[in-house]
Parts: sequence; structure tokens; C-alpha cells
Amino acid sequence: MVRWEPGATERLQKAALELFAAQGFDRTTTAEIAETAGLTQRTFFRYFADKRDVLFWGQDAFTAVFLRGMDTATEGAGPMQLISAALQSVASSFPDERRTYSRMRQAVIDSNPALQERERHKLGGLAISAAAALRERGIGEPTATLAAESGVTVFGIAFAQWIREDEDRSLTDITADTLAQLRALNA
Amino acid sequence: MVRWEPGATERLQKAALELFAAQGFDRTTTAEIAETAGLTQRTFFRYFADKRDVLFWGQDAFTAVFLRGMDTATEGAGPMQLISAALQSVASSFPDERRTYSRMRQAVIDSNPALQERERHKLGGLAISAAAALRERGIGEPTATLAAESGVTVFGIAFAQWIREDEDRSLTDITADTLAQLRALNA
Repeated sequence: MVRWEPGATERLQKAALELFAAQGFDRTTTAEIAETAGLTQRTFFRYFADKRDVLFWGQDAFTAVFLRGMDTATEGAGPMQLISAALQSVASSFPDERRTYSRMRQAVIDSNPALQERERHKLGGLAISAAAALRERGIGEPTATLAAESGVTVFGIAFAQWIREDEDRSLTDITADTLAQLRALNA
Repeated sequence: MVRWEPGATERLQKAALELFAAQGFDRTTTAEIAETAGLTQRTFFRYFADKRDVLFWGQDAFTAVFLRGMDTATEGAGPMQLISAALQSVASSFPDERRTYSRMRQAVIDSNPALQERERHKLGGLAISAAAALRERGIGEPTATLAAESGVTVFGIAFAQWIREDEDRSLTDITADTLAQLRALNA
């Protein structure tokens, strides 16, 4: 019998982050995460494949939000306008309430080379999907890949700024600023 | 007694590439590489830490050539002019004679996810070094990182084009074209 646990994903994510921060990613077990969340290990494995999966959960949704953003661009938009629309879509999916979680998550990733590789891999995959989406809209190569990679670079820089301790601007504002700096760079 | 083996690095690289291509990276041993090159395994380990190291040998030199290229830019050059100078420096270090080797190397890397991660990691490291070099020249953030990441993206795209079977333009020409496309994208 599979029981529905309200908010189980969030409880497990919160418990995992706290344990990773307190005792390190490597020293934390899925059993401890489940126990801290007040759930069984069996419930843990209903939502996540392993403890690393807790940190990278929602990746498909992230890519979908990015790509769907392109649909909001005006008819006949150029590649960087499409990327800009995609970035705005992603930025608005990170409201200020998520900043503390994102900071804690990043600290865990920064302390573990294997997790850093996984994160790079994730962003590399996003660039490949974004380039494919641009080609589907009739944009040729190398323009599609240049624009997609630029978008991922802008996201990475803006996100790193957003989670700085001394930063209180929204990710939407920081992303817009970073895009403007990219344009100025190539002007 | 350490004996000097003339051309040992090149012989080992050539032997390794042939074996990786013929039977796969995972199924190839350092003993086989040494034997195919007509050298001892002891000699292999004088030049390389392991079989993976054969594929990534020369990485420090690659970064050095990139960074040194910035010194050839004119006084008062902007960030993208510095990156352009760095890219020209790197491109000229890949003469057409290296194209066959580079094609074989890429085929091996493309067939192995762990090697792909290593390659991404290498290019990520280059971007970090390039951003630091730009900051040393007084360029602020996020401009330094945007320019450095753009440079690495351009290199990646130009290099992938250079090693295509149907391509015969030089890496220098392809790099210049790709940079021009990046400028057009943000115009």
C-alpha cells in the first residue's frame, strides 16, 4: 500500500539540506534523511533515487520552464530575444523565498567535486536543449549554440550573484542587468 | 638509470589513440600502450600518470598559450579584443597537421561519458583562468567572466567545426568567423 505523504518532497529536501550542511554530503545517509523528515526510508525512495537526487530534483521542470519561456517572445524574435525570454521565465521561477534554500544547496555543491561535475553537466544539458529549441525555430548554427551557451553563462553568473549573502535584488533584475552587460561587451 | 627515449611522448600518444579507437578506452591497458609504442610500461609512467592522462596531456601548455595570447593585444584593448587575441594564439597552436590526431582524440572522448566530463572540466578551468587574467588587467565582474566564458564557447564551437570530416578551413579562420557571428548575435 502506497500512502500519500503531504509535502514529503519538501520535507525530505529540507532535512537533506540540513544534514548535508551540518555533517557533509558524504557522511549523510538516506536513512538519516528520512528519519529527520519523520518519514520512512521506503518513502524516501518513492521520491528520490538516491541522496544526490535530492539536490538535483526538478531538473526536467527547470529545463521545461526555460524552453517554455521562448514561447513568450514576440513573433519574429531573434536568437538573443528568445534567450532573454527564456531567462526571464527561469528567473521568475526563483522567487526570493527560494534564496535561502538555494544558498544552502550551493554551499553543499561547492564542497563536493562530484556534485560540481553533476551541476556542470546539468547546465551543459540545458545549453544543448536550448540550442535544439533555437534550431527548431529556424536559427542556424553556430548562432543557435552561441546564443544558447550565452544564455546558460548569463544564468550561471546571475544565479551566483543572487545567492551572495550581501545581495537582495531579485533574480529577474540581476538577470536583466547581466544580459545588458553581455550586450555591452559585444557592442 | 633513467634512459631518454626520443619522441616517447608522441609514440605513446599515437599508440594509445590507435588502441582506444580500435578496442575502446576501457579495454585498453597501459601495458598494451607501452608495448604498441615499443617501450616499457616503466617508461609510460615516466610521462603519464595513467591512460586518461595521455588524452589530456599538454593541458597546462594549452592554458598558457591562451593566456599569453592576451599579451599580444594592443594597449588599451577591451575584454573581447583580449579574448580574440587569446583565441588567435590558441588557434595557431593547432596547425592542420594536428587535425587527424584531434579527430581521433575527440572520437574517443565522445564515446566515454567520464572522458566527456573531464573535457568539460578542462574547459571550465580555462574559463576560470581567463576570467582571472582579465580581472588582473582591470576588467570588472561580471564582464570578465562573461568575456571569458564567451571565449571558451567560441573555442568549443570552432574546434568542433575544425575536426568535422568535411571541413578544411584552418582553425584560425573558423575561430575568426565564429567570433564575428558572436558579435552579430549581440549587435
